[in-house]
Formats: sequence, C-alpha cells, structure tokens
Amino acid sequence: MTRADRPTIRDVARAAGVSKGTVSFALNGRPGVSEDTRERILTAALELGWTPSTKARALSVSRSFAVGLVLAREPELLGADPFFPAFIAGVERTLSDRGQALVLQVVPESEEEAGYRRLAGTGRVDGVFLLDLRVDDPRIALLEELGLPAVSIARPDGPSEFPAVLVDDRPGIAAAVRHLAELGHRHIAHIAGPAHFLHGSRRRRAFEEALAEAGLPAGPVVEADFSAAGGAAATREVLATGVTAIVYSNDLMAIAGLSVAVELGVAVPAELSVTGFDNTDLAAYVTPPLTSVRTDPYLWGRKASEALLDLIDGRTVDDVPVPAAQLVIRASTAPPPPGVRTETP
Amino acid sequence: MTRADRPTIRDVARAAGVSKGTVSFALNGRPGVSEDTRERILTAALELGWTPSTKARALSVSRSFAVGLVLAREPELLGADPFFPAFIAGVERTLSDRGQALVLQVVPESEEEAGYRRLAGTGRVDGVFLLDLRVDDPRIALLEELGLPAVSIARPDGPSEFPAVLVDDRPGIAAAVRHLAELGHRHIAHIAGPAHFLHGSRRRRAFEEALAEAGLPAGPVVEADFSAAGGAAATREVLATGVTAIVYSNDLMAIAGLSVAVELGVAVPAELSVTGFDNTDLAAYVTPPLTSVRTDPYLWGRKASEALLDLIDGRTVDDVPVPAAQLVIRASTAPPPPGVRTETP
Repeated sequence: MTRADRPTIRDVARAAGVSKGTVSFALNGRPGVSEDTRERILTAALELGWTPSTKARALSVSRSFAVGLVLAREPELLGADPFFPAFIAGVERTLSDRGQALVLQVVPESEEEAGYRRLAGTGRVDGVFLLDLRVDDPRIALLEELGLPAVSIARPDGPSEFPAVLVDDRPGIAAAVRHLAELGHRHIAHIAGPAHFLHGSRRRRAFEEALAEAGLPAGPVVEADFSAAGGAAATREVLATGVTAIVYSNDLMAIAGLSVAVELGVAVPAELSVTGFDNTDLAAYVTPPLTSVRTDPYLWGRKASEALLDLIDGRTVDDVPVPAAQLVIRASTAPPPPGVRTETP
Repeated sequence: MTRADRPTIRDVARAAGVSKGTVSFALNGRPGVSEDTRERILTAALELGWTPSTKARALSVSRSFAVGLVLAREPELLGADPFFPAFIAGVERTLSDRGQALVLQVVPESEEEAGYRRLAGTGRVDGVFLLDLRVDDPRIALLEELGLPAVSIARPDGPSEFPAVLVDDRPGIAAAVRHLAELGHRHIAHIAGPAHFLHGSRRRRAFEEALAEAGLPAGPVVEADFSAAGGAAATREVLATGVTAIVYSNDLMAIAGLSVAVELGVAVPAELSVTGFDNTDLAAYVTPPLTSVRTDPYLWGRKASEALLDLIDGRTVDDVPVPAAQLVIRASTAPPPPGVRTETP
C-alpha cells in the first residue's frame, strides 16, 4: 500500500461518524468514550484496514505531551550511578522548556517489557528513551512493534530504526590505557562491567584494543557488576596476578578497589595505579584522588530529549553526535615501581 | 452549604448537556473538548456555584492515575544521595502494582513552584509527594491552594493537612552520639546539612540534644551542604578545633572527611572517630569502613505511595509510622587517643 492509499485516522473518523480526536481517545483507551462508540470505531478501523503508525500517533490530537523512561535496575545500582540523575536533569531541562513531562517507571528486570507495554498501551507517553542498551537488545523490536518513537543512548549493536545519541566510551578508555602506557606500565588489568550491557562490553573491547595499539601484552579482565561489592571482589582477584595498574569500568568499583589495596598493604599509586570512569563527585575526594573519565550525561539528556520531541513531531531525525569523554588525571596514577618498568621491544 | 446541597460534577454535566467525563476533561484542560462546549461547561459551573474539591477530583472520571514528584535539587546532589533512587523504586513498586505512573519533574530551585503548578494545572497527576521539606515550607500552602492531595516525607514544622510518613532521624543521630560517648569521647563535632532543610536542622538539633543528654559539653557545629566538596571544607575547619570525633549529617561528607584526615596525617579511628548517615553502598568499602546510620527510603516510598493513593481515593489517611533508623557500627569509630579520655564529672 502506498502512503496515498493507506487509510488514515480521518477515514476511520468519517466512517464511524465521530471526530479524529474521539478516534484517538477510543484507540488509546482514554476515558470519556462510550462503549457503543468505541465498538463502532474499532469496527470501522478493522473494515478499513487501518493500523496506527508512529506518524499517525504523532499527528493525532491525543498527544500526551509526555515521554517515558523505564529503568530496570536495582535501586542500589541506580543510586550509585551518577549517570541517571544528570541524564534525567538534562532531559527535564528540555522537557520543561517545551511544557512536556517525564513519566518514570522503575521496575524489576523481569518486568521491563511490561513497563514499556504499559506506557504504550495507556497512551501516557508519546515516546521513550532507551538507556542501558544490552547486547541484542530486545527492546528495539518491542518498540517498533508498539509503534512508539524512541531515542537510544549509544547505537545498538543490531539494526534499529531509532536515532541514537552517539555516546562513545572508547576514547575515554583508550586515553586511560595510553596514559598508563606512557607512564611505563606493561601489565594492566581491566575490571569490567557486566558483559550483557553494551557499555560494559564496549569498554572492555576498547581496553583490549588500546593495549594492542600500545604494543602491550593482553591483560587480565575480570567481569564485575558495577557495584562496590563487585568491584572489591574483582580487585582481590586481579591483585593476585601481579599487574601494576587497573582500569576500572566505573568509579564505584575503582573506589572500592582503592580500599582493598589499602587493606592488602598495596600502596596507590606507588605500587598500583588505578583509573575509574564517570568522574563522580567523590573521585576528587578519595585517597588518593582518582584519575577518571569525565562524561556529560546532562548534555546527552538534553540532546536525547530534543531528538525525541522532533521524532514525535514527525521529523526525520539523524543520530546525534556528542563530544568524546575526557580523561581527568589525578593522583591515583604514577609510573610503576622500579624494576617493573620495561622498555617496549 | 452541606454536602447534600453542594452542586456536584453531575449537576454541571446535566446543565451543560454533556457527560461527567467531558466536564472533567474540560476543566482539566485536556484536549478533545471544543471551545463551545468548554464555554458552556464553565458557564454552567459558575451559575451552579460548583468548585472542584479534592474529593470531587478523586471521584471524577478524569483521574490521571498518576502521581507526581518535583525535585528541585542540583543534579550532582541528586546523584550523590542514595535516598532518591531507593525512594522512587519503593514508590514505583506500589504504583505499578496498581497500574499507576510516576511523573517526575527535575527543576532548578527557582522553578519549583512552577513545577507544581504545571503538574496541577495540566491534570497530569492526582497527587504529589513532598520531599526535602524545608523550614516553613511554602509548598504546604501552595498545594492546599492548588487542591492537590499530597503526602510528605517527615512531618512539616508548621500546620499541614497532609498525612506524613513519620521519618525521624533523631534516634539515628542520638545513637551515634551515644556510641561515641560510650567509647569515651567528650569533644565531638557535627558537620551539618543545610539549615533550611528540615532534615538538616533536625539532625543538628538531635546532635545537640544527645550531647546534653550524655552530659557532654556542646560541640562545634559547622553547616555544610551535603556535598563532597562541602564536607571536605567543613572537615578542615572542624579539625582545627581539636575534637576527637565528628558526627556527619550524611555519608558523602563523611567519606570526603576521611580523605581530608588522611591528607592532614590524622589517623582514623586512632586519633579521630567518624560517623556518617544514609549507609550508602560505599560506606562498607572505604578506608576504614564507615560507621553510619541505616535508613529505609524504599519502605518510605512504598508507604508514601499507599498513603497517597488512599488519599486520592477520598479516604481519611493518618500519619504513617515507620521503623527508626539504625546505627551500623564499622571500623571508623574507636576510643579517643589516651590522655584525651576524661571521666564524666
């Protein structure tokens, strides 16, 4: 069917003898439409072969003027990750400029799909943000099925019709490894985030590629869970391998790692260099102050909102470039102990 | 006017020749009502002397089935405070059980009132949560004016028609002071949160009362801002006074304080004992592990939601009692250095 042939919401309205607005209300399950009328509208839609499309939703008069965010992470991890409040604040800055609201759903992981279906089914939101992309993320297909516009933070690893804010962690990790290599380190470990998260697996791959780029041997990689407890346990494991530096996938694990080093009598940075990721508020206030990678989730939130609202308005939206993450060098990194430094062959 | 005499939304609907639902939609500014119809409804409402009340809003068919939260804090502080994600997760647990949504507004402090007015005026939410109560909080009167049901976390310090989740920080601070007194400390300082926040000023007063209760002299109090930077600066100020223990108003400031102590060559806990508040994830993973006060914002979120939904349904809702905060003793507290301990007179 060409666009000209395809029945529109206007055709359904005419066939059912009601306004376009009433059709929208009926199909979005909003109150205020009688059962008879709803029946009549559904019959007309079926007979005409009309199906709601993203564009139709955007052009219909039943815009919610709200966008949604479904977070399927444990509350403790939400709290420990400085990304979310900064991202949400950036989103809200744009939304409030435009009189829109954010509907937030925090659900157990097992209820993530239900959360999106609820947002879509009740017509509460006109679009959603996709965070914490996973490897082979099932939400892309789900949202395409639900006809809900979306913008993702980072590009998914598979096909996606949705625009992405082009967050790229690789330069930040690469800069950390390069910094350590320049200080003379050769035996460097990585404590990674969960592999099912794209940012976890991408940071890991960036670490491995940066080592190779610097002509260094492959280093130990321990997969942890972005939490303090996980970071501490992974650090114990890694310290047994004799590395002189550890690149952590986030600050929380790095800070816990500093604590383990102290406990085991390993001096930082004299015997062990440590880098984090996120540049949390505390990074500058731990002992020693933590070298980390600064990101800008507030800006990503603003950009993601602008892109999503444009998409909802029916515009074509390209991926959104954003500045690369920056290494912030503090006192947790230094040359390796003498005798460990070797010249590159 | 008695309840029997007062015109109802049904009367207005009849007079205007529309359904109850249409009256609600018109008066809540929802789309889908023609200008003529809106005019007719408003005229009927005025002639009948009908005014929306909280109960009427609850009984009307235009329930949003959503509740709101306006956060007027800097994103960095939002991120550093483990309270919010846990509270929101608890709220969402209850809301999703009942098919309701949370509309979140993160605004600059200067736009806080506008945020509430927007939520109320657009009919997006049926009620709101009140967090971060301030001394003489202007939001109580504002929400009473807007006719929006609300539940506060902690009791306000002035009159309020809204139920409160009876969060009480005082036993937690009192337990920390008592623990230090039992260890033999006499010169104890407090690094406080901002005085305009009720939890900041209440924890401070609890500290002062607990010292008096233990027969100890008044200790230095420095007001800070709950941030890492503020906690570090306040710690430098306090360490100059020669105290042997510091009771911090939150973990973030306490952890920053640990770092300052190390920098100044003050051994914790051998020369200085430190207690925090919140029992963040990191508390167990800093050096030394931090004695802190454990709270339960997830439970408060669940209770606050249940209370708010009951209130929206038109039920009478009393204040909600919750368990007191608990001291969690770790390795950051110990007897003061010998020679400093003195017997109580």
